[in-house]
Amino acid sequence: MKRLIVYSGGMDSTVLLHQFAKEIGMAVSFHYGSKHNDREIAYAKENCSALGIEHRIIRLDFINEHFKSNLLLSGGDIPDGHYHSRTMKSTVVPFRNGVMLSIAVGIAESHGLDAVFIASHGGDHAIYPDCREHFMSLFHQAALAGTYASVSVIAPYSRLNKRTIALMGKRMKVDFSKTYSCYKGGEHHCGTCGTCTERREALAGFDSTLYEN
Amino acid sequence: MKRLIVYSGGMDSTVLLHQFAKEIGMAVSFHYGSKHNDREIAYAKENCSALGIEHRIIRLDFINEHFKSNLLLSGGDIPDGHYHSRTMKSTVVPFRNGVMLSIAVGIAESHGLDAVFIASHGGDHAIYPDCREHFMSLFHQAALAGTYASVSVIAPYSRLNKRTIALMGKRMKVDFSKTYSCYKGGEHHCGTCGTCTERREALAGFDSTLYEN
Repeated sequence: MKRLIVYSGGMDSTVLLHQFAKEIGMAVSFHYGSKHNDREIAYAKENCSALGIEHRIIRLDFINEHFKSNLLLSGGDIPDGHYHSRTMKSTVVPFRNGVMLSIAVGIAESHGLDAVFIASHGGDHAIYPDCREHFMSLFHQAALAGTYASVSVIAPYSRLNKRTIALMGKRMKVDFSKTYSCYKGGEHHCGTCGTCTERREALAGFDSTLYEN
Repeated sequence: MKRLIVYSGGMDSTVLLHQFAKEIGMAVSFHYGSKHNDREIAYAKENCSALGIEHRIIRLDFINEHFKSNLLLSGGDIPDGHYHSRTMKSTVVPFRNGVMLSIAVGIAESHGLDAVFIASHGGDHAIYPDCREHFMSLFHQAALAGTYASVSVIAPYSRLNKRTIALMGKRMKVDFSKTYSCYKGGEHHCGTCGTCTERREALAGFDSTLYEN
């Protein structure tokens, strides 16, 4: 059976895309009005095309309009600092993974795909409640119960940190220059926001142009 | 604390709206491209206005585009017959309640609302896996785990049938002429589709203009 992947175009989901490329029947990128969606999704499109994977881009404009987060174009400035910093909480988009997964589950059931992959990982847990393994396990059970075909939700990286994922990607020869992370959405990675800090730590020892601006 | 209600403008959610009007801080109607959304939502807007409840209408155009169901404008004809008929399965929109609830949970957390009401009931269970009490319980647990404020999902009518809900509405003097059910979306209820059949059975003995075409 084929699976659907929730694919942002960031580092983690790009490694996941490569790892399970042969099992993936469809990749879906959600444009939910964040400051960095345009740049992420451009890479998502390019990577899917290179692997011959069907790619759909779905606009969720209601998130920018009705949700509150500094990650969104409608929100305030992106804070600098480490992910674990309290200020980074302002970048949480409430229940974003719940929204993306539920749409992905509905599309999977509509197209005969039996599972949904998502690349949430151990490093996300500190500030994102809907990235934790416990949430993923509960959502998986809800998806099983709420679909005819018992669609699964699979988060293979739930117990890995971003450094481990980066090293896995390196072994698979993933081209990280075709991924984007910065929450500020500029042409170059800012190097100082939470996700740039995490990217730099994960890619330490790799080509520094991958994370320096 | 105030709650959000997922409000279609049909019979059941209109009774729920009236029953908990004092606790409701926001009603959200989703226009997901069904044949009957326009008529339902017009009543939703009217009923919220009459009760002084903030009402938001959110378009989910991606459902009509990427999901498969005969309930949708992009799908085939609505079958006639009873809900329990096998042909009615073609009107299931995969994981629709999952999608609507997840968006509602994100909006609730964004606006300081502590719970989401939904009017799924016992009569829906036969063909809709994402209406069952078991699904609602699992989704509630996922919402609790996936939000900072531990947003709840409450389905007070899970064990009631539509007839009981209609009688509750009658006692509350709900005006059922300001609700719409027919899946075909015509000016008058067709009287023969699954939801019209169920509406007629629920409103038996009420003013027959409420369910006859």
